[in-house]
Amino acid sequence: MTPYEKAFRGKNVLITGGLGFIGSNLSIRLVDVGANVLLVDSLIPEYGGHLFNIENIKNKVRVNISDVRDEHSMRYLVQGQDYLFNLAGQTSHLDSMEDPYTDLEINAKAQLYILEACRRYNPSIKLVFASTRQIYGKPEYLPVDEKHPLRPVDVNGINKMAGERYHLLYNDVYGIRSCVLRLTNTYGPRMRVKDARQTFLGIWIRLLVEGKPFEVWEGDQLRDFTYVDDVVDALMMTATSPDADGQIFNLGGEASIRLKDLAALLVELNGGGHYQVRSFPPERKRIDIGDYYADFGQIRSVLGWHPKVSLRQGLAQTLSFYREHLEHYQ
Amino acid sequence: MTPYEKAFRGKNVLITGGLGFIGSNLSIRLVDVGANVLLVDSLIPEYGGHLFNIENIKNKVRVNISDVRDEHSMRYLVQGQDYLFNLAGQTSHLDSMEDPYTDLEINAKAQLYILEACRRYNPSIKLVFASTRQIYGKPEYLPVDEKHPLRPVDVNGINKMAGERYHLLYNDVYGIRSCVLRLTNTYGPRMRVKDARQTFLGIWIRLLVEGKPFEVWEGDQLRDFTYVDDVVDALMMTATSPDADGQIFNLGGEASIRLKDLAALLVELNGGGHYQVRSFPPERKRIDIGDYYADFGQIRSVLGWHPKVSLRQGLAQTLSFYREHLEHYQ
Repeated sequence: MTPYEKAFRGKNVLITGGLGFIGSNLSIRLVDVGANVLLVDSLIPEYGGHLFNIENIKNKVRVNISDVRDEHSMRYLVQGQDYLFNLAGQTSHLDSMEDPYTDLEINAKAQLYILEACRRYNPSIKLVFASTRQIYGKPEYLPVDEKHPLRPVDVNGINKMAGERYHLLYNDVYGIRSCVLRLTNTYGPRMRVKDARQTFLGIWIRLLVEGKPFEVWEGDQLRDFTYVDDVVDALMMTATSPDADGQIFNLGGEASIRLKDLAALLVELNGGGHYQVRSFPPERKRIDIGDYYADFGQIRSVLGWHPKVSLRQGLAQTLSFYREHLEHYQ
Repeated sequence: MTPYEKAFRGKNVLITGGLGFIGSNLSIRLVDVGANVLLVDSLIPEYGGHLFNIENIKNKVRVNISDVRDEHSMRYLVQGQDYLFNLAGQTSHLDSMEDPYTDLEINAKAQLYILEACRRYNPSIKLVFASTRQIYGKPEYLPVDEKHPLRPVDVNGINKMAGERYHLLYNDVYGIRSCVLRLTNTYGPRMRVKDARQTFLGIWIRLLVEGKPFEVWEGDQLRDFTYVDDVVDALMMTATSPDADGQIFNLGGEASIRLKDLAALLVELNGGGHYQVRSFPPERKRIDIGDYYADFGQIRSVLGWHPKVSLRQGLAQTLSFYREHLEHYQ
């Protein structure tokens, strides 16, 4: 067991969005290393929460169904916690454009509820906030480091930007220790595959496992991908390191890949499958960011994090998971 | 009359925060050049709106008392307007820390109401949004240009950052023409002098005119100041120039000045007065940004704007206004 895993033994850990993709993978690891885990999730059908995600640990964690927009429940739930992994969020770019208010309530206002609750009732808690590469907008240079200007191309990116700034502000002004991780495309078992609300890759995997063709839009865009176990490492390392307090860190992948090459790799790993390369639908084109891949040198140098799972290995494990469990995710 | 003034003749202009400091000065100019002016203001006592501000033009403008958080009234009011100067906002840094939710509702959520109303009911409107230097946080270099990283030191700065980004997003994605001005310390007749909610300078001026001593905190900080007539020029120039669409421009002053020198200049112009230099109260020290002055080269090169009123002249006019009208502003 690594030092950052040992640090969680016997600790009280709250995870918002705990039944979601990343939250559930994190909770499985935390249970394994001996933490007392409390999961908060709204189980809104369009979001990532899913009870099957914690099927293997359901008797070893506590689950509290509530919404981060419920100021009163958050006020109670943060009390007595050593760590808070703040992963709940609205993640769909298109949903944020169609209903900007709901996105604002979840990604900005509810973050203030959580931080105010910590400030008043548990100021010694340590928070890690899951932000997104989406806030950079269309890259001005590659790879994108943390100093890259922020010019979000959707309402979601703007509200996530506010959400991460609140965390840094409460760190700086009130000493509520917080760290921000800017995630790129995260993939792995328990990712949402029902639709493209979290990432297009989810729907590709589902259709592939179902034996149906999937669509690749354009295909020449470069993207980077982080396997969920590597994200879990980063979350636990930042939570337990004082060097991370008040910091922003990009996550990234070992190498960037063009989407058409990703599609081909998936088909190869699946032992067959079909896809069509198509041009962007107009509502998607408007918010396309072109190529993106992150410079994660900062978290590598400060905390020693780097992605350990290759894309080939991670995708194979993901396909294997959905071949076995797809019925629960449709 | 300048070309940008002529452009407003016979045009319909909506000003949110229209009874406030900048809104009222803008409306006086707009009436003068022949625009049809509609002012929206909530008249919340802690904010800048004040009916005496439009005493001289009260029969030449329409006034609609409502709050930008009133989604329904905004939906109606934007219709038929050629220009919208979006000046309403919560401006107090300390209030934003004590009640972050109200600041969020006004400076972020209500901005979405306004933009959605424009998108649905008047997509050919042109907007100018009043943002603030506060979003830069503590300067990393001086003078601060528009590329300076954004690291707000209070909730107000974070929400204003979201508010300006919404405007740019609606410009880029939906073609709702918008421009953002980042104001520094604006001063002049009709500024709030009752307390320090807009700027410390307001309360200095009131106490000086009342013959009472005022307090200077620290005193060595460099700041820049823009006289309100120069801000009105910038608002009208950006509104009428297609080159400003989707742009962010800093405003600034002719020169920066240390606060203790500003205090001495005020006393000189007033022909007497007293002040004490004191150290920061702790709650203020936490969010102090040190020296700040803006690089306004961008709006100078794109639109030809530059400050025309010297600090000496502007302060003299401001003192003169409050010597005559202080009874209305106490």
